Amino acid sequence: KEERITLAHGSGGKATQTLIQAVFLEEFGNPLLAPLEDGATLPLGDARAAFTTDSFVVSPLFFPGGDIGDLAVNGTVNDLAMCGARPAFLAAGFILEEGFPVADLRRIAASMAAAAAAAGVSIVTGDTKVVQRGKADGCYITTTGVGVVERPVELSASGARPGDAVIVSGPMGDHGAAIMVARGDFDLESPIVSDTAPLHGVVSALLDALPGHVRTLRDATRGGVATILNEVATASRAAVVIEEKALPVRPEVTGVCELLGIDPLYVACEGRFVAVVDGAHAGRALEALRRHPLGAGASIIGTIRDDPPGLVLLRTAFGGTRIVDLLVGDPLPRIC
Amino acid sequence: KEERITLAHGSGGKATQTLIQAVFLEEFGNPLLAPLEDGATLPLGDARAAFTTDSFVVSPLFFPGGDIGDLAVNGTVNDLAMCGARPAFLAAGFILEEGFPVADLRRIAASMAAAAAAAGVSIVTGDTKVVQRGKADGCYITTTGVGVVERPVELSASGARPGDAVIVSGPMGDHGAAIMVARGDFDLESPIVSDTAPLHGVVSALLDALPGHVRTLRDATRGGVATILNEVATASRAAVVIEEKALPVRPEVTGVCELLGIDPLYVACEGRFVAVVDGAHAGRALEALRRHPLGAGASIIGTIRDDPPGLVLLRTAFGGTRIVDLLVGDPLPRIC
Ligand SMILES: Nc1ncnc2c1ncn2[C@@H]1O[C@H](COP(=O)(O)OP(=O)(O)OP(=O)(O)O)[C@@H](O)[C@H]1O
Ligand SMILES: Nc1ncnc2c1ncn2[C@@H]1O[C@H](COP(=O)(O)OP(=O)(O)OP(=O)(O)O)[C@@H](O)[C@H]1O
Ligand SMILES: [Mg+2]
Ligand SMILES: [Mg+2]
Ligand SMILES: [Mg+2]
Ligand SMILES: [Mg+2]
Ligand SMILES: [Mg+2]
Ligand SMILES: [Mg+2]
Repeated sequence: KEERITLAHGSGGKATQTLIQAVFLEEFGNPLLAPLEDGATLPLGDARAAFTTDSFVVSPLFFPGGDIGDLAVNGTVNDLAMCGARPAFLAAGFILEEGFPVADLRRIAASMAAAAAAAGVSIVTGDTKVVQRGKADGCYITTTGVGVVERPVELSASGARPGDAVIVSGPMGDHGAAIMVARGDFDLESPIVSDTAPLHGVVSALLDALPGHVRTLRDATRGGVATILNEVATASRAAVVIEEKALPVRPEVTGVCELLGIDPLYVACEGRFVAVVDGAHAGRALEALRRHPLGAGASIIGTIRDDPPGLVLLRTAFGGTRIVDLLVGDPLPRIC
Repeated sequence: KEERITLAHGSGGKATQTLIQAVFLEEFGNPLLAPLEDGATLPLGDARAAFTTDSFVVSPLFFPGGDIGDLAVNGTVNDLAMCGARPAFLAAGFILEEGFPVADLRRIAASMAAAAAAAGVSIVTGDTKVVQRGKADGCYITTTGVGVVERPVELSASGARPGDAVIVSGPMGDHGAAIMVARGDFDLESPIVSDTAPLHGVVSALLDALPGHVRTLRDATRGGVATILNEVATASRAAVVIEEKALPVRPEVTGVCELLGIDPLYVACEGRFVAVVDGAHAGRALEALRRHPLGAGASIIGTIRDDPPGLVLLRTAFGGTRIVDLLVGDPLPRIC
């Protein structure tokens, strides 16, 4: 039977990883791509540049707390930040559907401009394509970023070591929950707003506070925090053990997730990241994060152990332990 | 009446330019974007990097001479080459439609890998999104490139001066004509194949032969050679005067264009560029180009004059003169 692309291939979970490895890594394979980090780090003259791309297909285009425009800027700014880079330049490619209102496009471009200004980046090049009615869904945007790696960092999902602390920078799942509510499919009302935000400032604060002691940074987008933790466990050949009661989730988000039957651990954020830091400096890391508005809700959620390697374990509020696997299927398509 | 996006906004012609200026330049405006060259040139440490992006929505995905994969690699490689850069790194963002055959995706990825290897670039980062059936058309790809500007070039559409020669690197319109035939809408048969090819090698040969004497390089993609010439005339505040009988067009392409009622001057190439060079060195430029397989069909097609500024004039085979304006409408949607 002919294999076909399913929505699960876009979830950020198990199917996405399999596709990326079996098709893209297999065909494109090279040392810069192979570690599958948030971006690639490029040697350019005497500089190190970070380079990353994301396509945005979120639906709806406008939602509480943001729109596809600021999401597309912040998303790429954040993947640069996760490389330890100062975000500097963006490219923006638009695929527009015939019939899309120019006023909406202008609103989206204005929102990108504002987000770029807030993040200190310039949109320096772009592209505009149009497809016939019914061949897209209004507006898709691909942003690609170049950043400058000014610190001597070596950040990688493979860098976690037993004894390290696992920190999440704020409450989980706000973005995904906001999109699900905005979509109106579930006849929910809720005050939840997307957490879309540029993270390089709060990341700088952390890197300044813990020079040499930050192992891994990863923004918790598609697949949520659970996906990141699995990536760390696999790449570092270590166990990630997290405490259910330490997981920060807003009560409104818990409510929406319960209604939809989804675990907030798998719900996308667009302004939160997971950091793995040397356990001896965890307290200092938490302080540095909490002093920044975008890290005010940071929590230490777990630790790295040597056993069982490759697994993420959750210690439940009742004292039990369960495996937190990669996301299977796609409960929340087109979240970003 | 509410203004809406039309296919003409994607043509590369007049409507595209208006949209880019009224919306994107207006909102994003900054000195690196403002000249609207093929790519932006970035200061990065002691290096100068070129940076460019293109989204590809070509239909059909597979066509004589290529497919969306090698087109997406070569297109971005060529925009880097037009900046005088050595193409080095690519990012690739995929938007896939639910139901797309994985075998086709693999074929496209393999074609990208082969094109990247041929061009000496690495695909170092990427993204994969999936949208529901009916929200895309199989596969869209956005490639973004980073190149290294190793020569002390200052290339710009605004650099043409009276007395300069205008050269096209080979026959016009092969790509657009191949796509139109492949689409099957017109029940045509023709041996035309796309000219998709990486141009940095032939550009290097030209720049090496004429150090300091190349003013402008631009690949003749959407809107064809006529669009490029208009960009040069406007940006340089000069007249571009071309000779109809000097325009290289394959007879098969002339045939298809006559049937479709389209002027080959407006038909997209994906492996041809326009160069404006110091008139005193035009002969040497032509020799250098013709020695390279991808410049074997190069011709001097015209000259830069000071009057009338901003216009492109065609001297017809019969001795008349007509204005060659920007493309209006979109006779060839989704050509790249
Ligand atoms: N089509 C592709 N070609 C090459 N590499 C890809 C492709 N899709 C994803 N990758 C790589 O796989 C890894 C994971 O990609 P993914 O998009 O999940 O990361 P992300 O951008 O951090 O997450 P999100 O897209 O949810 O923001 C990255 O290293 C990325 O460069
Ligand atoms: N959405 C956009 N935002 C910002 N700049 C844009 C946008 N679309 C196009 N541009 C800029 O406008 C100029 C012309 O773009 P265009 O896509 O026509 O060039 P090209 O890539 O050389 O041609 P083609 O896309 O046909 O290969 C470039 O400088 C490009 O960076
Ligand atoms: Mg990321
Ligand atoms: Mg991302
Ligand atoms: Mg373009
Ligand atoms: Mg170009
Ligand atoms: Mg281009
Ligand atoms: Mg991504």
